[in-house]
Amino acid sequence: MSAVETSMPVPQVPETLEGWSLLHQMFRIRWHGVRNLSAAARNDVAQEASSLLESMNAGENGSTATVNMLGHKADLMLIHFRRTFEDLSRAELAIAGTRLHDHLEVATSYVSVVELGMYEMTAKLYQQPTLRALDRDSPEFRRIIGEEMTRQRDRVISRLYPEVPRHRHVCFYPMNKRRGERKNWYAAPFEARAAMMREHGVIGRLYSGQVVQIISGSIGYDDWEWGVDLFADDALVFKKLIYEMRFDQASAEYAEFGPFYVGLQFAPHALDRLLAGEPPAL
Amino acid sequence: MSAVETSMPVPQVPETLEGWSLLHQMFRIRWHGVRNLSAAARNDVAQEASSLLESMNAGENGSTATVNMLGHKADLMLIHFRRTFEDLSRAELAIAGTRLHDHLEVATSYVSVVELGMYEMTAKLYQQPTLRALDRDSPEFRRIIGEEMTRQRDRVISRLYPEVPRHRHVCFYPMNKRRGERKNWYAAPFEARAAMMREHGVIGRLYSGQVVQIISGSIGYDDWEWGVDLFADDALVFKKLIYEMRFDQASAEYAEFGPFYVGLQFAPHALDRLLAGEPPAL
Amino acid sequence: MSAVETSMPVPQVPETLEGWSLLHQMFRIRWHGVRNLSAAARNDVAQEASSLLESMNAGENGSTATVNMLGHKADLMLIHFRRTFEDLSRAELAIAGTRLHDHLEVATSYVSVVELGMYEMTAKLYQQPTLRALDRDSPEFRRIIGEEMTRQRDRVISRLYPEVPRHRHVCFYPMNKRRGERKNWYAAPFEARAAMMREHGVIGRLYSGQVVQIISGSIGYDDWEWGVDLFADDALVFKKLIYEMRFDQASAEYAEFGPFYVGLQFAPHALDRLLAGEPPAL
Amino acid sequence: MSAVETSMPVPQVPETLEGWSLLHQMFRIRWHGVRNLSAAARNDVAQEASSLLESMNAGENGSTATVNMLGHKADLMLIHFRRTFEDLSRAELAIAGTRLHDHLEVATSYVSVVELGMYEMTAKLYQQPTLRALDRDSPEFRRIIGEEMTRQRDRVISRLYPEVPRHRHVCFYPMNKRRGERKNWYAAPFEARAAMMREHGVIGRLYSGQVVQIISGSIGYDDWEWGVDLFADDALVFKKLIYEMRFDQASAEYAEFGPFYVGLQFAPHALDRLLAGEPPAL
Amino acid sequence: MSAVETSMPVPQVPETLEGWSLLHQMFRIRWHGVRNLSAAARNDVAQEASSLLESMNAGENGSTATVNMLGHKADLMLIHFRRTFEDLSRAELAIAGTRLHDHLEVATSYVSVVELGMYEMTAKLYQQPTLRALDRDSPEFRRIIGEEMTRQRDRVISRLYPEVPRHRHVCFYPMNKRRGERKNWYAAPFEARAAMMREHGVIGRLYSGQVVQIISGSIGYDDWEWGVDLFADDALVFKKLIYEMRFDQASAEYAEFGPFYVGLQFAPHALDRLLAGEPPAL
Repeated sequence: MSAVETSMPVPQVPETLEGWSLLHQMFRIRWHGVRNLSAAARNDVAQEASSLLESMNAGENGSTATVNMLGHKADLMLIHFRRTFEDLSRAELAIAGTRLHDHLEVATSYVSVVELGMYEMTAKLYQQPTLRALDRDSPEFRRIIGEEMTRQRDRVISRLYPEVPRHRHVCFYPMNKRRGERKNWYAAPFEARAAMMREHGVIGRLYSGQVVQIISGSIGYDDWEWGVDLFADDALVFKKLIYEMRFDQASAEYAEFGPFYVGLQFAPHALDRLLAGEPPAL
Repeated sequence: MSAVETSMPVPQVPETLEGWSLLHQMFRIRWHGVRNLSAAARNDVAQEASSLLESMNAGENGSTATVNMLGHKADLMLIHFRRTFEDLSRAELAIAGTRLHDHLEVATSYVSVVELGMYEMTAKLYQQPTLRALDRDSPEFRRIIGEEMTRQRDRVISRLYPEVPRHRHVCFYPMNKRRGERKNWYAAPFEARAAMMREHGVIGRLYSGQVVQIISGSIGYDDWEWGVDLFADDALVFKKLIYEMRFDQASAEYAEFGPFYVGLQFAPHALDRLLAGEPPAL
Repeated sequence: MSAVETSMPVPQVPETLEGWSLLHQMFRIRWHGVRNLSAAARNDVAQEASSLLESMNAGENGSTATVNMLGHKADLMLIHFRRTFEDLSRAELAIAGTRLHDHLEVATSYVSVVELGMYEMTAKLYQQPTLRALDRDSPEFRRIIGEEMTRQRDRVISRLYPEVPRHRHVCFYPMNKRRGERKNWYAAPFEARAAMMREHGVIGRLYSGQVVQIISGSIGYDDWEWGVDLFADDALVFKKLIYEMRFDQASAEYAEFGPFYVGLQFAPHALDRLLAGEPPAL
Repeated sequence: MSAVETSMPVPQVPETLEGWSLLHQMFRIRWHGVRNLSAAARNDVAQEASSLLESMNAGENGSTATVNMLGHKADLMLIHFRRTFEDLSRAELAIAGTRLHDHLEVATSYVSVVELGMYEMTAKLYQQPTLRALDRDSPEFRRIIGEEMTRQRDRVISRLYPEVPRHRHVCFYPMNKRRGERKNWYAAPFEARAAMMREHGVIGRLYSGQVVQIISGSIGYDDWEWGVDLFADDALVFKKLIYEMRFDQASAEYAEFGPFYVGLQFAPHALDRLLAGEPPAL
Repeated sequence: MSAVETSMPVPQVPETLEGWSLLHQMFRIRWHGVRNLSAAARNDVAQEASSLLESMNAGENGSTATVNMLGHKADLMLIHFRRTFEDLSRAELAIAGTRLHDHLEVATSYVSVVELGMYEMTAKLYQQPTLRALDRDSPEFRRIIGEEMTRQRDRVISRLYPEVPRHRHVCFYPMNKRRGERKNWYAAPFEARAAMMREHGVIGRLYSGQVVQIISGSIGYDDWEWGVDLFADDALVFKKLIYEMRFDQASAEYAEFGPFYVGLQFAPHALDRLLAGEPPAL
């Protein structure tokens, strides 16, 4: 075994800001049951659910995206954007209360919170003489960082509480930073991590205008550390962007990817089209 | 293959004290069945289960926490705190005997025992001249450690048998210490492990007042080595605490995390609200 | 931990061209239900599905292969070749709308896009003086690459939109390039990767005439990075080809293989034979 | 890749003796069905199964332990001790033939054979001049070892065919010896393995009187290499013993642990109490 | 990352000969349904299936072994030996067409082809001056190897198309050769692999007369690279043989083992005994 070097704690002030609470719900549709409904009954089922879903698009209080998924993993994905976990629970229970829910099989889900990494800002802060003079785990150090975070929060508030991007294609996947025996993100120094995230961001910006990305953190909430939602008009962009990123150091050496989900976003009122067996329009 | 060096046994006296036996039970609710009950029948189902759950909060004999979970992994989590495994079995069988149980699908569970790590006390003991003069696997050495453990037990008895923290948000996850081919917690010297746990504790204390943590050991009882329950008013605290801890050496290099579960604690008498499709209050 | 060396981004222009969108659907047949149908009813079920499947073979708009699978993983595999993800959704929903679907259990699926790796062309481009003089992440560099890609696309269009090879045996499996802690494809230089892919291709060509291969990319769409479909008259060829390739460096050191599926392709109109319990002919 | 050094075979005469054939069966109870039985019908179901289980405790022909398990993995575990695999099949089929079986869901099982490791005896044998003069793969060498094994068998026959220990708590888990790329039990020399097993045994003996252990081998029979059954009056002993052992070299560097199961042993005639929803007594 | 050295392809002519196509089918029996049949109906079910299974033992056209499995993984295993994959499909569909199939749950399966490794012959060939003078990927080189393979095929034809060994106990497991980051079978030179396989064979021969082994290859067909079937009168032989082999270099460093299945072979006409709840005789 390699020698274990221990040191006094160097607290790692979380360098993130948080916004919407997110619940991704994925369902399979039980087609046999749906097909056996009369057209009128099917319409009622669709109507009730559509109304609920439309009422969930409530601006500042949050909204819900509806996506028709490809493949066996799910037929329907709902992404709930809410203010609190209590509101997520309320949304989940409301969906469970519809007649549509009798025709759904719960496939999987993901709980997370929209997150902005503030690596660059934090890196600059750490250079300030006031902070350099302080112990990183002193209350004073943490208070100064906290105040600056509050200021930054106002600046980026619209990115913490974004509207659902109305693009046709949606891609969702969870991921981790590797904690391997040799390659360990959490054992890398802050400066190296910040540089790798900067490189990662440069590639992302090459695709700006083609894809909208929402990152959410799920440490403490779900089985991976982050969730990534991508929205684009052209589904090929997902493949090209993620492939290209796979070569940057942060991804190549430190990223672990969970399952990938892909589908087509649609308007809640088009749910009846889906139940009738046709791709519903956005 | 690296050379295999063998040595005579250096027994590792367990440096822990134990309290409540714990059983986490996670259930999915079969909403279709619940929704098809008449309001009166649903009320009866809720009443019977609520009464049982309230009767389970019996002070010194233990108690049971009720949590409304987010996502597909579970809708309802019960955490039974009991004196013995026989009492856990009695609780599990009592729940299985309710009419509510017909509307539940058993999702998963976790068996463990509340545990306090006594690294610091043990480290001090090991420095005592009397003990240093003894073989670590001599009966005398083990007797002295055992007596001191008994004394310490009285001192920390309230932390071994804590009351359920009545905070709104609950996070549960199991974890291991890594036994990798290069990074192996169980091959690290006692002193190095004690130092790492000290660092880990320092970060935890930065969050004191914001979060209550209950650690339970499950070696010999379940598939991971420890279970962690966190209770907090603000769910963001789970994310910030666990993220920050992920950078201390004990976590960064040696922790392996299982699935994460998160939900909202509620009062047993509010179970009828949950069955009616609304988030129940604490 | 090994030192983390960071560098400014060297964007990796995706060196691929894309064609058909693919959806593999795998179903188990519920034989009990099929056997309990009257011969006439069974015929109706087969007829409806056969007609749909035959109508899906629509030349430039795509086609659908039907395969009778061996073993418990699936009894029936459909491979949909389509122009867009929306068309894949349409195909999936149409299948879900048949009476046959009541007798199917969805086993698994795979979403991907036919892909041609353009390593050799890209390698040559990179040698051109114009490009060598440019920054790899400059807009100019990316524009030149893009234009050449468009030219190449015309040249290889029939390989991007191939007809379904009408060979009796079909083998499908997904795969990744390894991102291990020591062997990491995505950390290998472009030139080394290009050389390994060249070697890989040489072995493939030893089997030309015996097997037809269709590679599809699924980064961003499904849980592995690529899907591989092989078509051959003699099923032994799959074993010999894949075994021999397992020794080239790209496979030996960098390939990770998912589950393997094997079956016998048949003509859609022979579906009634399958439902009657006999291997259907191509 | 590290150089591959090959050598002529050095056969590894198995250094074990075998006794009872074991089948662990784990079942979940379908409580809904049990609860809907009339008291009389439930009694009949319990009576039939109790009689069968009691008849299975047949001394020299073997016996069957009955255990009430904690948590979702199983409600009921049966451990069949038998002379042959045919007798295990007979027991399994007899259980499947009870009315109780209609209320059981088969959760998992484990097939193994009680085994005593004879490392120390073998180590001594290997030192004998007669054997040292022989090739380890010569028929003569194997004959001498075989004869000594037969002699030892008589000496330890009661440990090969033990009675079921009648302690209240039962812990079962399967395990492997690691065959990692760096830490590989099967590439370690016999002497090093013998020394590690000796150390392992020393710790075990510190708990003698508190716990009874039955080791069974399952190479060739089930998915792990060994099964371990522990029996104790105090369930805490499982945790303390396994925790302490985790630090010996054989466990720390070479053990891989499967799922852990824990429960309370009870007398077969108390099965009616379990079905009535109360912990049954031993 | 270690340096990536690339070289021109050195094709690896597959050094194997192939015989029977194999399909292992594993089923759980739904005992509730079987027990609820009248004795006459149960007899009819058994009779129909027995007749089919007996008709499948058709000498040169193949045969089918029937095995009563221990534990929860399966109650019944069928091993179909056939000339072609089409014949395997025919067998699978015929089984699905019996009334017995209504009482079976498909648990798992395995698709493979009986294979003889020709390492020694190939090694000798490679020493021939004619071949040493040739490029390994020249058509001439491959033609000479191919012709010799054809000659060898005649010599070993009875081992490529063996009869089912009529021993009572059957053990089946799939396995891979490791492709680890440090230990990689496919990156080892041919001569080293040949030497390791020779050592492996020596141990196997120590058990000749006690066990019959059938190796089948499944690269391209199923999720592991090989399947291994062992047949023996004494089930202990499986454990001793596999344990002893685990120490040879090919197994210790390069083998990865899948799940193990064990059971008792029986005569097809004894199926009625199994359905009646008694171990059926061979």
